[in-house]
Amino acid sequence: MNQLSNRRVVVANRPTGEPKPSDFRLETVPVPELEDGKILLRTNYLSLDPYMRLRMNDEKSYTAPVPIGGVMDGEVVAEVSRSRNPQFKEGDLVSAYTGWQEYAVSDGQGVRKINVGNLPQSAALGVLGMPGLTAYTGLLLIGQPKPGETVVVAAATGPVGSAVGQIAKIKGARAVGIAGGAEKCRALIEEFGFDAAIDHRAPDFADQLKAACPKGIDVYFENVGGDVFKAVQPLINDFARIPVCGLIAHYNASSRPQGPDMLPEFMKQVLVKRFTIRGFIVSDFADHALDFYKAMIEWLAAGKVRYREDFVDGLENAPDGLIGLLKGKNFGKVIVRVAPETAK
Amino acid sequence: MNQLSNRRVVVANRPTGEPKPSDFRLETVPVPELEDGKILLRTNYLSLDPYMRLRMNDEKSYTAPVPIGGVMDGEVVAEVSRSRNPQFKEGDLVSAYTGWQEYAVSDGQGVRKINVGNLPQSAALGVLGMPGLTAYTGLLLIGQPKPGETVVVAAATGPVGSAVGQIAKIKGARAVGIAGGAEKCRALIEEFGFDAAIDHRAPDFADQLKAACPKGIDVYFENVGGDVFKAVQPLINDFARIPVCGLIAHYNASSRPQGPDMLPEFMKQVLVKRFTIRGFIVSDFADHALDFYKAMIEWLAAGKVRYREDFVDGLENAPDGLIGLLKGKNFGKVIVRVAPETAK
Repeated sequence: MNQLSNRRVVVANRPTGEPKPSDFRLETVPVPELEDGKILLRTNYLSLDPYMRLRMNDEKSYTAPVPIGGVMDGEVVAEVSRSRNPQFKEGDLVSAYTGWQEYAVSDGQGVRKINVGNLPQSAALGVLGMPGLTAYTGLLLIGQPKPGETVVVAAATGPVGSAVGQIAKIKGARAVGIAGGAEKCRALIEEFGFDAAIDHRAPDFADQLKAACPKGIDVYFENVGGDVFKAVQPLINDFARIPVCGLIAHYNASSRPQGPDMLPEFMKQVLVKRFTIRGFIVSDFADHALDFYKAMIEWLAAGKVRYREDFVDGLENAPDGLIGLLKGKNFGKVIVRVAPETAK
Repeated sequence: MNQLSNRRVVVANRPTGEPKPSDFRLETVPVPELEDGKILLRTNYLSLDPYMRLRMNDEKSYTAPVPIGGVMDGEVVAEVSRSRNPQFKEGDLVSAYTGWQEYAVSDGQGVRKINVGNLPQSAALGVLGMPGLTAYTGLLLIGQPKPGETVVVAAATGPVGSAVGQIAKIKGARAVGIAGGAEKCRALIEEFGFDAAIDHRAPDFADQLKAACPKGIDVYFENVGGDVFKAVQPLINDFARIPVCGLIAHYNASSRPQGPDMLPEFMKQVLVKRFTIRGFIVSDFADHALDFYKAMIEWLAAGKVRYREDFVDGLENAPDGLIGLLKGKNFGKVIVRVAPETAK
């Protein structure tokens, strides 16, 4: 086994603004001998997610940045390829945060056996995984939509946004989705059942959003920031709730935007409209994972929640996949097929 | 009775920036004949509060602005001087939002009989009234301080701030107060029992605040905004709570501050630190008024909460009182003695 080699993608440079392919480096290293208590994981699928851009900066976000030369972080679906740990056996299907590489050695910490039922393995990285749980917990625990209220979400064909809109509908709210381009907007209505879909590239985007929210916005699920957030602000209703789980529009920013400083005015709106803003990451709500899983399996089976996946073939194409994701080029959950021959 | 005259203060002009005495006008009008079902209230004390500045602008805040020529809004402690309403009798002591005037005719809507026990009537406008309830509900329902956590509040010798710090102490938290000048800071420690007091006028204010919060800030009770909020931001802990009940530093602003635009960076901090910001006004929590009243009476009797009042003599001096309040010249709850001869 020790002649196995591992291809992995490491951070070559800290990007300024948009990451470039040269900010990543693909390298091949030997897979180390397996010590007692360890398992060898072979990656089938790697999830690409907006937060990865933040991990490339030399600043603390939730955790320390990925060091220069370090393997890019990321969640994978993997198979236990060899086990010297009694809790795992060869062939176990697991999810783990082992990053952008074909193989990883683990002591089993944070490695979770998964069962996706009739769904493809990759669903464990999307609708049944972190993005689905993000949508479920952020919308229901913070957003708390009531029947008849208006819920707005951007990046709405993405794995979080599409789940937010569909769960909002299940709860009796009106779902307004924002996406880039006519094709995505059509899918929001026809495929995901949103009540309205707005193209954020339209020159009259803000006016269209206003027209789509005649009773204002009660829940704005914030995962993009930028111009969408600007257009949302005047529409926020009294007592609205704004869960904040991402700000993809700002992840490439290398300097503060020009003035005027809008923060004082924003705080005044917080006060006058008495709304709530709360940041969260999915791990804050890990306690709710089982509830989520049960509900989502049921909704998927009943056809109440649909999802899309957007595959990237080969680990070597993961950097381009992330660069495209940050530009909104994906349509659905972006997943890298790392070992497609073994993935089912 | 119909020869009675009523002195009142009306809005003469919409202020630009700081209000000037000429933005107000004192006028004398006859008190109208009392119709059936009505009561005549004679104002003993008028409360002056920061929110009044916002009501002078031609913009909706919580409610419509005071119209030009309209009587300035405000809460008063008054006596029922005549009654043609069976629910009130002459001599009843009440609180009501009848504004900056000596007399008001009311149908009884929103007029609340009060009982301040051994305390002076004016307490119903401060520690036992709207400011006390603001502190109690904002701190306990939104801020939710836990023992050992750090609570920071500005305008800390004011009626809201002083109650916030003292209630935080009662709940086992560490209270850090911000005020203007050495005398107020001394009172925070010696009179109100804060753990630390910082003068926001000190050139090294931000450094002093940091030193006073070695474990960061878990609850920031926002009632001022401006430079205090700037100094607070880097100290906010993960999962912190920020109740927002006022932004006095911005109330005189007539244009947006110069850039850079700090809102995107602030939202990123919301996300990364997963904190909660929630605006509120005291009427949102009216359900908690009885709990508050019981608790505060007990704390006052036990000497656990103290309060200060800063009196302005005569309705004609109310404009100067408000102008001074907006500059932080007051020390404690600002109350206008409108009819001192009858007020006890």
